[in-house]
Amino acid sequence: MDPSKAAGDSGNQPGIRVVGLDPGSRIAGWGAVDETEGRLRVVDFGVVRCPPRDPLVLRLQRLHREIGEVIQRLRPDEVAVESVFSAASAGAALTLGHARGAVLVAAADLPVAEYSPRSVKQALTGYGAAGKGSVAGMVARRLGMAEPPDAEDAADALAVAICHLDARRAEARLARAAAGRRPR
Amino acid sequence: MDPSKAAGDSGNQPGIRVVGLDPGSRIAGWGAVDETEGRLRVVDFGVVRCPPRDPLVLRLQRLHREIGEVIQRLRPDEVAVESVFSAASAGAALTLGHARGAVLVAAADLPVAEYSPRSVKQALTGYGAAGKGSVAGMVARRLGMAEPPDAEDAADALAVAICHLDARRAEARLARAAAGRRPR
Repeated sequence: MDPSKAAGDSGNQPGIRVVGLDPGSRIAGWGAVDETEGRLRVVDFGVVRCPPRDPLVLRLQRLHREIGEVIQRLRPDEVAVESVFSAASAGAALTLGHARGAVLVAAADLPVAEYSPRSVKQALTGYGAAGKGSVAGMVARRLGMAEPPDAEDAADALAVAICHLDARRAEARLARAAAGRRPR
Repeated sequence: MDPSKAAGDSGNQPGIRVVGLDPGSRIAGWGAVDETEGRLRVVDFGVVRCPPRDPLVLRLQRLHREIGEVIQRLRPDEVAVESVFSAASAGAALTLGHARGAVLVAAADLPVAEYSPRSVKQALTGYGAAGKGSVAGMVARRLGMAEPPDAEDAADALAVAICHLDARRAEARLARAAAGRRPR
């Protein structure tokens, strides 16, 4: 969990940019992280706010347009998002689903990796039931930021981007180890 | 409900094209209807099928891309879709919401009108709890088709397009009547 540890790992090769997304129907967070030779660097982050009084379709169009602009501007190699399997009610699930659908397709044809909220927390803090504050704190620490982003949704988006880079790095390490063990 | 009745009404002016959409996560129907001087004409209709084994994100990207192509090709003035307020479970709602979000934003910045399933049935058959078959039969009758589309989802998409054209026409009539009653 020491930030220097990530830098010490043999990293994702070559330099890779991941945009993490945290889509909601009223506010959607986004955050871009670069990894070069095992070093993480925050590129940019922010949120899209949709006036709750606007009709759903207008909110979706705005979410889609603004997240699409972020993707076009930052040109990530891959996108990461938290998966959702449940919601408080069918109504809430329907609304959240709309927002996620609108945001996910803004990533056009980029690869989109999904991680459960539990595995994001686990990746960042080592504890799958960690609180929002601990996750945001670790986001700041891993990215060498003086403090976490003000907006919780932006911190969550950066967290899923870091989780994806960690998972990729672990996968690459396993692949290299397997290749090393291979006869001939 | 006589098809000649619609033709006799003073119609939406000038000629208008509406694409109706019936989005689902595995199959999405679409159908385009023109109205010129109160006469309805079917332009084209079809469905987008998404292999259920594909991951959700790929299904959404496909839905979004193919419905986007339909919209770009047919260049409707407006889009109409059935609203959804409930689902069998939160899980089903989440999946349906994703599909609807992906499809609705494929309409880019066009006006999107939503109608409850009940009002679509009411508009087509005069009965808000009509069965699928009655609705499809009335779609064929209103559009002068020898028989309804094979695909139920395409028939549903044409139905919501007709419902929207009917609603617009009624609104225009009311506006004209109100203008006629206005002093001076």
